[in-house]
Amino acid sequence: MLSKKVVKDIQSLGLKKNRQESGLFVAEGPKVVEELLKAVPERVEAVYATTGWTSGTATEVEISDEELAKMSQLKTPNKVLAVVRQFEQTIPVAEGLVLYLDTVQDPGNFGTILRIADWFGVKQVVCSPGCADLYNPKVVQATMASIARVGVHYDEDETWLAQSQLAVYAAALHGSPLSSFGKIDNGILVIGNESKGIRKEILSLATETVTIPRRGTAESLNAAVATGIILSHLT
Amino acid sequence: MLSKKVVKDIQSLGLKKNRQESGLFVAEGPKVVEELLKAVPERVEAVYATTGWTSGTATEVEISDEELAKMSQLKTPNKVLAVVRQFEQTIPVAEGLVLYLDTVQDPGNFGTILRIADWFGVKQVVCSPGCADLYNPKVVQATMASIARVGVHYDEDETWLAQSQLAVYAAALHGSPLSSFGKIDNGILVIGNESKGIRKEILSLATETVTIPRRGTAESLNAAVATGIILSHLT
Repeated sequence: MLSKKVVKDIQSLGLKKNRQESGLFVAEGPKVVEELLKAVPERVEAVYATTGWTSGTATEVEISDEELAKMSQLKTPNKVLAVVRQFEQTIPVAEGLVLYLDTVQDPGNFGTILRIADWFGVKQVVCSPGCADLYNPKVVQATMASIARVGVHYDEDETWLAQSQLAVYAAALHGSPLSSFGKIDNGILVIGNESKGIRKEILSLATETVTIPRRGTAESLNAAVATGIILSHLT
Repeated sequence: MLSKKVVKDIQSLGLKKNRQESGLFVAEGPKVVEELLKAVPERVEAVYATTGWTSGTATEVEISDEELAKMSQLKTPNKVLAVVRQFEQTIPVAEGLVLYLDTVQDPGNFGTILRIADWFGVKQVVCSPGCADLYNPKVVQATMASIARVGVHYDEDETWLAQSQLAVYAAALHGSPLSSFGKIDNGILVIGNESKGIRKEILSLATETVTIPRRGTAESLNAAVATGIILSHLT
């Protein structure tokens, strides 16, 4: 049986403040935990698995469904929970296609965008202040393990984009249609906030504005869907 | 002040059974309510708005934030709630580009797909049994008012797809790359379940299989994102 302290420590990682202080985060579910064990085994500090599921790691602790439910941040706890050391942030090299997220606040969208980046081979994502926290349980979940493979950098002082030498493609309404762009090997694709779009000061850094032509009547597209459509075309 | 009965009746619409019996559903938030009032005013049976927001309709009832919180199905109630009569189901005409959803269960994905259909001018969506309920509050929310503009038909006895004379394009792994397809004026695009994909019996009806080429390492794409990418290319 787990000690009350262990349960409490893990529960406390639901808050960003505690994640920052400890440098840890929680990953849940067989898929995410397995992928993390494969990609960054040295970062996985502890694995708590319910009877019937095993990761095969020596340090795994067997727990009951009730214990998992207590520690889990999910509505429907899913067999296993791991405590993982946060990734090191390195300032991204301006090469290849880099994604820049301007104030993408919704954790589900944010995580889904990382999964899309991973699908299309984008290795670096830079985030403006105000983006969701990479280690928010909903983000970790939505990345479907891509969190282990995509580098995420928080551009806290907002200097990276202005200093970069790459062409900047801003996704916005009223720009050039996506079909007028070819494959882009090096560049930065900027995706804006779900309802407010890209801030003016960021938009002013854009070399080009990319628009997904609308053929119907919806007012907008979800930020993650727009990212997928544009990356599918540009990569 | 609202009567207890009104509050209870509206709360009861959170359950599919009650929605089916009454033929009603609940739409929440200024955006969705405004769009419904614009698109199908004759279907909006009642509007309950908190002080400070008004739809301008004569029958609007002013309520308190507490009353809205009681009736709302949302975590964060949003100013206004409307009770709306469900749309009539008409068997879709096999023309234009039609979307067929095979067991798309997640309400958020389902609603987002309707929003994407609306963006790309797809007017008809056919759903297999097992898809999310169109009138689930999370679906209504995720459509961002596209629910008022896209026709949705539930193919309960699963006969529509087999009987249709249109070419069937199934979105699946290991098919022809999306770039090998041109614009499609008439056809059916089939999107599968979030984790299981398209069922075999549906896949066997496909004329072509469409694949979004993967350039990185993610295992899959979210169903709504995949729909957006394919529709962007085919329309």
